[in-house]
Amino acid sequence: MSAAAREERILGIIEGTRARPARFRDKHITTAHGAGGKASQSLIEGLLLPALGNETLSALGDAGALRVDGAVLALTTDSYVVRPIRFPGGSIGELAVNGTVNDLAVSGARPLALTLSLVLEEGLQSSELRAEIDAIARAAEAAGVQVIAGDTKVVERGHADRMYVCTTGIGVIDPRAALSPSGLRSGDRVLVSGSIGEHGMAVMLARDEFSLEAEILSDTRPLWSAADALLEAAGPDLHCMRDATRGGVASALNELARASGVAVLVREADVPVDATVAGAAELLGIDPMYVANEGKLVAFVAPGSAAAALAALRSIPGCELAADIGEVLGEPPGMVLVDTAFGGRRVMDLLAGDPLPRIC
Amino acid sequence: MSAAAREERILGIIEGTRARPARFRDKHITTAHGAGGKASQSLIEGLLLPALGNETLSALGDAGALRVDGAVLALTTDSYVVRPIRFPGGSIGELAVNGTVNDLAVSGARPLALTLSLVLEEGLQSSELRAEIDAIARAAEAAGVQVIAGDTKVVERGHADRMYVCTTGIGVIDPRAALSPSGLRSGDRVLVSGSIGEHGMAVMLARDEFSLEAEILSDTRPLWSAADALLEAAGPDLHCMRDATRGGVASALNELARASGVAVLVREADVPVDATVAGAAELLGIDPMYVANEGKLVAFVAPGSAAAALAALRSIPGCELAADIGEVLGEPPGMVLVDTAFGGRRVMDLLAGDPLPRIC
Repeated sequence: MSAAAREERILGIIEGTRARPARFRDKHITTAHGAGGKASQSLIEGLLLPALGNETLSALGDAGALRVDGAVLALTTDSYVVRPIRFPGGSIGELAVNGTVNDLAVSGARPLALTLSLVLEEGLQSSELRAEIDAIARAAEAAGVQVIAGDTKVVERGHADRMYVCTTGIGVIDPRAALSPSGLRSGDRVLVSGSIGEHGMAVMLARDEFSLEAEILSDTRPLWSAADALLEAAGPDLHCMRDATRGGVASALNELARASGVAVLVREADVPVDATVAGAAELLGIDPMYVANEGKLVAFVAPGSAAAALAALRSIPGCELAADIGEVLGEPPGMVLVDTAFGGRRVMDLLAGDPLPRIC
Repeated sequence: MSAAAREERILGIIEGTRARPARFRDKHITTAHGAGGKASQSLIEGLLLPALGNETLSALGDAGALRVDGAVLALTTDSYVVRPIRFPGGSIGELAVNGTVNDLAVSGARPLALTLSLVLEEGLQSSELRAEIDAIARAAEAAGVQVIAGDTKVVERGHADRMYVCTTGIGVIDPRAALSPSGLRSGDRVLVSGSIGEHGMAVMLARDEFSLEAEILSDTRPLWSAADALLEAAGPDLHCMRDATRGGVASALNELARASGVAVLVREADVPVDATVAGAAELLGIDPMYVANEGKLVAFVAPGSAAAALAALRSIPGCELAADIGEVLGEPPGMVLVDTAFGGRRVMDLLAGDPLPRIC
């Protein structure tokens, strides 16, 4: 691909294959609008984009791109409202750094720096705040970024849950990257960087709403080294990456199938799921494909480079269980299909409701 | 100043004159920690900086700087939690855009783009959300920036006040800018870009906590054209700019006196205050110098360029009332003094408590 064509894709020009935007008709905001499913999609496509619309935002990538002098920069922002703020395997501060670093990484951008904005609840213990600031500092160091600007607000008791954290990340688009949410092509292999569903399940169990004792740790971790390995192994054959957070792998695949006007077929038996996660999910009646991850990406790679990309991914610590879980089909556009372990084929749609609120 | 020296100041190397950092010893977070006074200072200097510390963040500018290829970029972030979300003269969405654009402007950075992260309260009316998104779009257009990345979270009813908004801005440091919080020099003139105290007073009256009827509008507006005019008129003689938001002009002057190791003397009679604001402030027993502004900056200019800078500022629409309100003294370091209208001289310290919470 030429440099100009690559940049055009990076800058997120929408392609004609894109499905018609969802409409927003709800009278009130519900927790479903924050869950990453159909309600979120209608809020974004039906209200936010028409008002704020520009080509970069409308591309619906994990990060927006901006050209400054010679460099192409990526910016991404996320608020974290996870409840409880500490859970097995991590906490809100670590999540806020890794989540933002990962949105840059899957956009093909090497993370450079973060900003940090805190909304603190009156009465928050200083020791709790200190623990999160330390977690942020450690996670930033591990991800190789600095926090270069910050802000703190305090709201009265009860008007936040201990703290909400907003992190914004800036990175530089890697010259090897030719990625786009609309870049999926028929024949592409679908890779996942490890076992799925751990973060969401860890947070759910930490809430004590379920009388279920299981040792499940959040998978929160930075993904730039995984993204870097994929870029190196596949180059322009790497068509898209996305981190499978809210709504899990199922929602990420649906969004990308829709943005690219293609179908995605997943082989359920090939999707790595930890036995404890699978057991808990079965007891709770939840499909792990919809459960949030905070250290897993999905990648779409042209078939000729898929084996090399998978090998490269598996060489990264934490990605040893990476797997080829399916492929991109031409038809039916915008749809995700699953070949189940029992031999059937079904549709894996976006969720309409909100089974797992406040997971990140 | 040489390009290298200028960049060193931009990048915020702390100078030796800086006062000893405040300590943080509180057991719990209180609303005072978000009010921009002494408690905020102790939280930032005593807890956040030691953990996250790097030279850029430690410089305590309104924006952090980052070098990418040839360009020097500025990043700034702010959460907005103003209550109520609509008030005479503006609303949270407009505030979030202007506040962030202004943090870039006073850092000498031409605003390029914003990111937008929303924390919405379950039950928020869609019409309220739509009104704020439209306000954000209009304010962004007026300020010449695009929203290039976004995020939406939803928290349960009661866990936020309708909405909290986090905006992060990116800009390019203007080549004419040689600004630093530690750049104040003895003899510098202190300019303010217009009449003070309007935003905070408008929000306070909108809360209906006071049985006071007065027509006061928030002054929320973008300040890049004012900053641009000052840069053009004074060049390297413009030593520092700051927007006087939380804590008002008094807190901004205190922070800068402290960062530069100088004193600032204000002539109270020369500070422009609208008669309605002055009357309401007197009735409420509040000094307008401590009341938040959302469209006013203070600037420190070497004496030889002060008249030209003031004239340039007054030529900008909305800054017709700009005034020279005082000067920088060598002693006593870190202190702000006021020559009152009655002929006395007193100290104008940072506030210890929190008279005006949730003002932005």
